[in-house]
Amino acid sequence: MQEPAMARIGIVTVSDRASRGEYEDRGGPAIKAYLERVLVSPWEGVTRVVPDEKGILAHELEDLCDQVGCCLVITTGGTGPAVRDITPEATEAVCEKLMPGFGELMRTVSLQAVPTAILSRQTAGIRGGCLIVNLPGQPKAIEECLDAVFPAIPYCVDLIGGPYLRTDEERLVAFRPKKKAP
Amino acid sequence: MQEPAMARIGIVTVSDRASRGEYEDRGGPAIKAYLERVLVSPWEGVTRVVPDEKGILAHELEDLCDQVGCCLVITTGGTGPAVRDITPEATEAVCEKLMPGFGELMRTVSLQAVPTAILSRQTAGIRGGCLIVNLPGQPKAIEECLDAVFPAIPYCVDLIGGPYLRTDEERLVAFRPKKKAP
Amino acid sequence: MQEPAMARIGIVTVSDRASRGEYEDRGGPAIKAYLERVLVSPWEGVTRVVPDEKGILAHELEDLCDQVGCCLVITTGGTGPAVRDITPEATEAVCEKLMPGFGELMRTVSLQAVPTAILSRQTAGIRGGCLIVNLPGQPKAIEECLDAVFPAIPYCVDLIGGPYLRTDEERLVAFRPKKKAP
Repeated sequence: MQEPAMARIGIVTVSDRASRGEYEDRGGPAIKAYLERVLVSPWEGVTRVVPDEKGILAHELEDLCDQVGCCLVITTGGTGPAVRDITPEATEAVCEKLMPGFGELMRTVSLQAVPTAILSRQTAGIRGGCLIVNLPGQPKAIEECLDAVFPAIPYCVDLIGGPYLRTDEERLVAFRPKKKAP
Repeated sequence: MQEPAMARIGIVTVSDRASRGEYEDRGGPAIKAYLERVLVSPWEGVTRVVPDEKGILAHELEDLCDQVGCCLVITTGGTGPAVRDITPEATEAVCEKLMPGFGELMRTVSLQAVPTAILSRQTAGIRGGCLIVNLPGQPKAIEECLDAVFPAIPYCVDLIGGPYLRTDEERLVAFRPKKKAP
Repeated sequence: MQEPAMARIGIVTVSDRASRGEYEDRGGPAIKAYLERVLVSPWEGVTRVVPDEKGILAHELEDLCDQVGCCLVITTGGTGPAVRDITPEATEAVCEKLMPGFGELMRTVSLQAVPTAILSRQTAGIRGGCLIVNLPGQPKAIEECLDAVFPAIPYCVDLIGGPYLRTDEERLVAFRPKKKAP
C-alpha cells in the first residue's frame, strides 16, 4: 500500500478585526485543531487571515488553489447578512462549480441549535482541483458544521483528483462508495 | 431604556388579478395581521399591490428599500413555476446578497403539509439596510412560513443596521445570540 | 371525461462512456421503468444519450423542450463535482426559472442513505412549457429521488400548461391542491 501524497489544506479566517490584530482569531485555530483530530494521512495547513474585502479574499482563494496547490480550503467568518460579510460572494466568484448541498446541510444542522442559522449564507464550490468550503465564525458552530460535512469531503477530493485523505475512523468515518458514484 | 425607533415594513402583494381588483387580496392582510400579533415595538406597514411583472415589482422593491426606508419587505405571491410567476427573479435582481436559508427552511416546513411545496421558489435577500423575504400566496402557508423564519428576522435587521424589533414573547420568541454572531 | 393529451417525456443519460457505447446505460432505463410503473395517462418517452459536454447537453435539452415538445425532461448523471460533471450548468443555462426545491429535497432524501449525497449538485428548472429535472446516475438513487419529487411533478406540469399526467394511485399519489396555488 502506497503512502498517500501530502495534502495541502488552506485555512482562511475572514475578519476585519482579526486581520488588524484587534481580535484574536479563534475560527482558524478551531479548524486546524479539528483537522489534527480527524486526519491521519499526511497533510499541512496553510493559514491566512484576511479582511472582509471581496477582492482580497477572492485573490487569496485563487492563490491557495492555483499556486499553493491546496486540495481543500476552509474559510471561517463573513457569511452573515451584514454589509461587510462577503465570503460567499468571493467564493462564488472564484469557483467553476457550486456545491449547494454543503450550505443546505450546515444550515439544517445549525438550525437545531439556533433559529438564526438561516442567516448564514455559507456555500461551497470547486475551483480546479480544490474544494472550497465556507464555515461560520464561531468555534462551536465550526465543529457542528465540520461533523456534518466532513464525512463527504475525502471522496469529493478523490473525485477532483486530489490526494487520498484518510481519517481516524474512531473519530470520523469518511464515506466512499464501493462503485463509482454519485 | 430608550424607546426603539419606528420600523417601516413593506407588505407587497404580487398578483395580476389582485392588482386589477378582480380578486380580493388575502395575502397582504394575512401578513399584516401576523405582524400585528407578534410585534410589540413601534412599526408601520406600507402596503402595495402590484401585477406579476418583473420590472414593476423590482421598481416597487427598490422604492420601499431606498425611498420609503423599510427595514423589512415581505412579499406574497408569484413564487410558483408558472410563466407569470416572477417574484424570486425580481427579488434577486434588486438584492446585493441572497439569503438561501429562508427559502430552504420555508420549503422544508411547507413540505410537511403538501408535497408540492418544492414548487415554491421563494427566496430572500438584502438590499442596503432592508431584508426582503418572499412568502407564498395562501394565508395558511404564509402563517406556517412566518412561524418558521420570523424568529431570525429581528436579529437579521439588527445586523443590517435597522431598528430594534421586539416581539410579544408569549406569541413568538425572537432569537438574538449573547455574543456577536453568526 | 376527456382523454388526456399524449405527454412527451425526455429521458437523457449524460455520460461520456455510455455515449461512446463503452458502458451500458442503466440510468435511462431505470427512469423509463419508473415512469411505466407510475403513469397511467398516455405518454411516450424520447430517450437520448449524450456525452458530458455542456454545449451538447444544452442543445439537446433545448431540442427536447422546443422542437420535440416535451412537458418533462429527466436527466441522469453528470451532477457530481468532477471536472466532466456539467449537467446542472447545462440545465441552468437553458432554463428561464430555477426550481431549487427539487435539488434540496433530493439531497435531503439521499442523505438518509449516504453522507456523500451533499456532493450531488442536481437542480431543476422550467424552460417554456417544460420542466427539466436532474437525477443522479445510480438506479437506486434514481428511484429514491423520483419517489420524493414525483408527487409534485404532475401539478407542476399543469401550472406550466402541459398535459394532465395521471398516476396509478396505488403506486404513487400525485398531489394537486383543491384551489389554485402554490
